[in-house]
Amino acid sequence: MTTGWPDEYYAVIFTTQRTDAEMAMYGLTSERMIELAQQQPGFLGLESVREDNGLGITVSYWRDRESIAAWGDHAEHRVAQALGRKEFYSWFQLRIAKVTEERSFGLDDLLG
Amino acid sequence: MTTGWPDEYYAVIFTTQRTDAEMAMYGLTSERMIELAQQQPGFLGLESVREDNGLGITVSYWRDRESIAAWGDHAEHRVAQALGRKEFYSWFQLRIAKVTEERSFGLDDLLG
Repeated sequence: MTTGWPDEYYAVIFTTQRTDAEMAMYGLTSERMIELAQQQPGFLGLESVREDNGLGITVSYWRDRESIAAWGDHAEHRVAQALGRKEFYSWFQLRIAKVTEERSFGLDDLLG
Repeated sequence: MTTGWPDEYYAVIFTTQRTDAEMAMYGLTSERMIELAQQQPGFLGLESVREDNGLGITVSYWRDRESIAAWGDHAEHRVAQALGRKEFYSWFQLRIAKVTEERSFGLDDLLG
């Protein structure tokens, strides 16, 4: 498994379609949520990709289900979630999944 | 859960860094793999995003672990996997996870 990560952990798969609205506020909010998530207990890592058409996938990894629940209830995150529904996303799909297997290629020198 | 999908299912989270090599062959191979995956028993859906810097996340969804194993062993997919390691990707990380929860926003009219 990824160096330093537990054998089993959880992924939050967040697939989103950005609107064209509130570009500056979205950038600030998105950066702040990544910064804040990284400070939460149980946070393991995050991967995020968005195409120019606005379709994005963000996967965050967490030690356990409780860490995900606590992050979901974080007061500042709650504000961002409301902005997400009101302004940032025309639709999203969020899935929580338990990671049980992984393999990688070419990452030995990249990951700490 | 997503309309018509089982209550629990599996996600394959494939995070990749494209090289600059073999653009045309990559495009053809990628399209063919998506077409082929959709024809496999147990395939539920696929989301794929890649940024201009070559970082991509593809998440495919499957009914069960056996469907994922069978797709991994598919002869034509095996050839593509070898090309992936040799030409297409400087690194990748593949994770298999069991999806147990989901929620969505704004998708009622989009999904069949």
